[in-house]
Amino acid sequence: MFDRERIQGVIPPLATPLTQDGSLDEPGLRRLIGRLLDAGCHGMFMLGGTGEGLYLTDAAYTRTIEVSVDEVAGRVPVLVGISDTSTSRSVERGKLAARLGADVLIANPPCIGQKPADVVYEHYMRLAGETGAPIMVYNVPPGIPTDVTVETLAKLAEQDGIIGMKDSASYGHLSRVLAATKGTGFRMLCGVENFFVPSMRAGAVGGTLASANVDPQLSVKTYNACVSGDWDQAQQLQYLLSEFVEIAYHNNWTLVCKHALSLLGVCESDTSELPATALTSEQKKVVREWLVQHQLLG
Amino acid sequence: MFDRERIQGVIPPLATPLTQDGSLDEPGLRRLIGRLLDAGCHGMFMLGGTGEGLYLTDAAYTRTIEVSVDEVAGRVPVLVGISDTSTSRSVERGKLAARLGADVLIANPPCIGQKPADVVYEHYMRLAGETGAPIMVYNVPPGIPTDVTVETLAKLAEQDGIIGMKDSASYGHLSRVLAATKGTGFRMLCGVENFFVPSMRAGAVGGTLASANVDPQLSVKTYNACVSGDWDQAQQLQYLLSEFVEIAYHNNWTLVCKHALSLLGVCESDTSELPATALTSEQKKVVREWLVQHQLLG
Amino acid sequence: MFDRERIQGVIPPLATPLTQDGSLDEPGLRRLIGRLLDAGCHGMFMLGGTGEGLYLTDAAYTRTIEVSVDEVAGRVPVLVGISDTSTSRSVERGKLAARLGADVLIANPPCIGQKPADVVYEHYMRLAGETGAPIMVYNVPPGIPTDVTVETLAKLAEQDGIIGMKDSASYGHLSRVLAATKGTGFRMLCGVENFFVPSMRAGAVGGTLASANVDPQLSVKTYNACVSGDWDQAQQLQYLLSEFVEIAYHNNWTLVCKHALSLLGVCESDTSELPATALTSEQKKVVREWLVQHQLLG
Amino acid sequence: MFDRERIQGVIPPLATPLTQDGSLDEPGLRRLIGRLLDAGCHGMFMLGGTGEGLYLTDAAYTRTIEVSVDEVAGRVPVLVGISDTSTSRSVERGKLAARLGADVLIANPPCIGQKPADVVYEHYMRLAGETGAPIMVYNVPPGIPTDVTVETLAKLAEQDGIIGMKDSASYGHLSRVLAATKGTGFRMLCGVENFFVPSMRAGAVGGTLASANVDPQLSVKTYNACVSGDWDQAQQLQYLLSEFVEIAYHNNWTLVCKHALSLLGVCESDTSELPATALTSEQKKVVREWLVQHQLLG
Repeated sequence: MFDRERIQGVIPPLATPLTQDGSLDEPGLRRLIGRLLDAGCHGMFMLGGTGEGLYLTDAAYTRTIEVSVDEVAGRVPVLVGISDTSTSRSVERGKLAARLGADVLIANPPCIGQKPADVVYEHYMRLAGETGAPIMVYNVPPGIPTDVTVETLAKLAEQDGIIGMKDSASYGHLSRVLAATKGTGFRMLCGVENFFVPSMRAGAVGGTLASANVDPQLSVKTYNACVSGDWDQAQQLQYLLSEFVEIAYHNNWTLVCKHALSLLGVCESDTSELPATALTSEQKKVVREWLVQHQLLG
Repeated sequence: MFDRERIQGVIPPLATPLTQDGSLDEPGLRRLIGRLLDAGCHGMFMLGGTGEGLYLTDAAYTRTIEVSVDEVAGRVPVLVGISDTSTSRSVERGKLAARLGADVLIANPPCIGQKPADVVYEHYMRLAGETGAPIMVYNVPPGIPTDVTVETLAKLAEQDGIIGMKDSASYGHLSRVLAATKGTGFRMLCGVENFFVPSMRAGAVGGTLASANVDPQLSVKTYNACVSGDWDQAQQLQYLLSEFVEIAYHNNWTLVCKHALSLLGVCESDTSELPATALTSEQKKVVREWLVQHQLLG
Repeated sequence: MFDRERIQGVIPPLATPLTQDGSLDEPGLRRLIGRLLDAGCHGMFMLGGTGEGLYLTDAAYTRTIEVSVDEVAGRVPVLVGISDTSTSRSVERGKLAARLGADVLIANPPCIGQKPADVVYEHYMRLAGETGAPIMVYNVPPGIPTDVTVETLAKLAEQDGIIGMKDSASYGHLSRVLAATKGTGFRMLCGVENFFVPSMRAGAVGGTLASANVDPQLSVKTYNACVSGDWDQAQQLQYLLSEFVEIAYHNNWTLVCKHALSLLGVCESDTSELPATALTSEQKKVVREWLVQHQLLG
Repeated sequence: MFDRERIQGVIPPLATPLTQDGSLDEPGLRRLIGRLLDAGCHGMFMLGGTGEGLYLTDAAYTRTIEVSVDEVAGRVPVLVGISDTSTSRSVERGKLAARLGADVLIANPPCIGQKPADVVYEHYMRLAGETGAPIMVYNVPPGIPTDVTVETLAKLAEQDGIIGMKDSASYGHLSRVLAATKGTGFRMLCGVENFFVPSMRAGAVGGTLASANVDPQLSVKTYNACVSGDWDQAQQLQYLLSEFVEIAYHNNWTLVCKHALSLLGVCESDTSELPATALTSEQKKVVREWLVQHQLLG
């Protein structure tokens, strides 16, 4: 049985490298995983928001799980996103991911429209019951419109099979969930850079920060400052972390990550399945300057 | 090559009958199709909004196409919904549906969030180009958040492979599209009961009305009044049609249709994959009374 | 007591002409009213959406009522918009407007956010009770976010003091309200050009169409075709009406009207209090071309 | 000239006590102000969101300013909310408030719909230019739908007349504004209880927390822990502050505050002008229990 305490630290939501024809760039994914493990990351979150899990074809989705499980080889937990339009479709994905070796399954509520609390609760209960794997909740309103309520999370946290969540809503929401689930062992991960240190201070056990795809050391260093109780250094690193991701607020986060990774030579291309306008050459220039400014590119 | 003029008349968006374990209720689907053909319907729209196309498992989705193509046996066109989260996933579904014998593929924009016009345009261009099948646009804001603009539709209507649309937005939107696509042969279907007759008057060629699952004769009779130019009778039938569907505005449309069909003995159960709160026993009672009142149930 | 049957025909929602310093352009307003009366309009709707009633200073708001009551001089009913942020503020405006001679008061729900049905119902009950004047409902979602439900309207229509509504939501909504208020004497006005003729066909008694500020003859002619039962001519005129307002869908409706009126020499300027981006010179050029194309400008 | 450094500490957004007929409960307001000054609050924010500034009649609005300026008598700064539907209406309110003795004017963007950045920028520039008083920005999406962007705030912060903001959006937004306005002297106030301590840690100068209406000592104590650098104690108090306001997330914040104040005997009644459903007796019971539990009521 999976020990939920292994969910802690920096668990990047990996971008999924694609070749120009839309299939998985396997060498690219292996390079990315290696780079994140070298930096000291504590887990891999595959096929989440940044990983375009909701948008990939079945073939690319499946292959991403196979390659990541193979490459990680048990060194850290592999979390796999199983979000989809309905509970049954998420269950199908969850069974597949569990069979292929995922340690933990992580899912949004059904992704279209705002769902009532009873539907959200049943969704997670069915995911836990029908996949048999440890489940985490992924809350990222309004990108996925339903904001999982604190009340629903308090009820879910009492279930053995539902072990924690990634909260990208806000520090306010995350801190309310921490209070409401106190003593249950529910594992809280902060999902957005600019409230990472306050979240750690309030009781989160780690973060899944998209910028760690590009600069994993910064996330790891900040995390280490938090766990060692050096809150002054943590606050200084928080400024860097916030500054670092500011660019993503003016562009599409996933596309920025993928373009940065292709500039760094980690991925073969910045091809994406996201239904979004491609970066302009002007926007790509900004990404390059940002990498140079942060000394990630010469 | 498919003759787009075959798209006309009453083309019900069929509910997808499911057994209690979530697989396709094949006899139920065959009964439903038979009932609609007997009533004089002019086409079958499988796996659209009412058909839960976005929510079914791959197995149920695939089997629904196979059974409907087999049961219809070429008597009327079979339209298949291929909506999904991304263009590539819709393309996969489209290739499958075309291979299994669908005459026309019909798709929403990518279903999460509001997409910009360039993304919507590219979506439909890729669907046409990569599936090789005739494509129709399905516009149903805000259920699927993106409202396909009149300008985008005017551009798409110039493409050979994009032959028409089902518009569930509003009479205002539909009439604007009619004006903007005049002379292109773009086929407009009205998607909601209560603006069906005005749409026909303004130039639509038919309707895909969910209530036709339950009372197909009323839709067919109304359509016939329109095409014979008897607008006074059409207006009287429009009142009935509007009254008939009023109940659906107070409940979940799909769940009401499925429950009505199970009460009528067409389907085995009212099981659904929709991420929605189930009908209460009080709501089910209202559906039953409605059927009695409209003399569909004794 | 006001005879509610006087509410019928073409009742334009007048733009409020302003001088460049934001005060009322009185000669402009008198010219506009004269022009609309000359064209055969059947009422004047002051200070609604197009009239910026929600945005004007108290001074401009008050003076607009005084001048319009004086200029109309009882020839047709004067409807005055009293929308505001809360019921008490609308009551204050309503008492003022009634004292200054308004025949009918017309109000949105409280204008910020989506209000529950009980709040909307109480709002109109208090407006009727505390102003003592005849009240009409103004429904224009999502510009004003609350969509007044059919159920609430059915209940309001039973009150003597609440005599009708302007519905800008959609043909579907308007036709549902017509069905739900049948036999109560509730007066329905269509609020948007492109569903005017279908609304008349379904039982509306007139329209308050913004384009009538610019081309009142077209609205009057279309209305006359409807009441004489010449539905074929009405449908032809509906195409013109729809075409005529198409430009407003690509720009800000109020700003387009005001700029058109300034080009026609009716108003002194196109100054507005609307919190909206001003028209660009390119957009202004489009307005001019549109007037020339419709032979309103040489 | 007003010294902007006086904007610091706990500045409660006062509820506006009303008599049952909707006029100002003057003794109640004087008692409330006295209670907050006794607790050590550092400013009074009148007629903001909790103060129903947007909803009061002109008479109640005006009298609230007069009484608060009189009662405070210069001991702490008086901030007055001047939010309204348009810039001109906010300017009118701002001139009135400044003439009656307000130290600082604080305004939302125009309150209906989402406004583009150019309109928001011009709004604040006109407020500063036309009132001549120090202006603060009030950002509280989605209650008031426009979220003032970090870019707009960075530009506004360079203006002498625009001295700071109250940010109720999120810790993430607030910390981004802090970074973007560094070195300009822009005063940041945290607007929501559950990110108060992290905001202070990141550089905010105080908070305007609605719960301080009810328990001002807790806010003051937490603020003092922050400024003395005792972050461990601050974090402990943050938990209490968060717990204290949890109830307001399940009810209407303003109505809860007003009912609590009436139970405490500070206000004569819990009458409100908010267009919102009144608290049920069950909800009122919860408020009472909450006060007892926090030892504010015997």
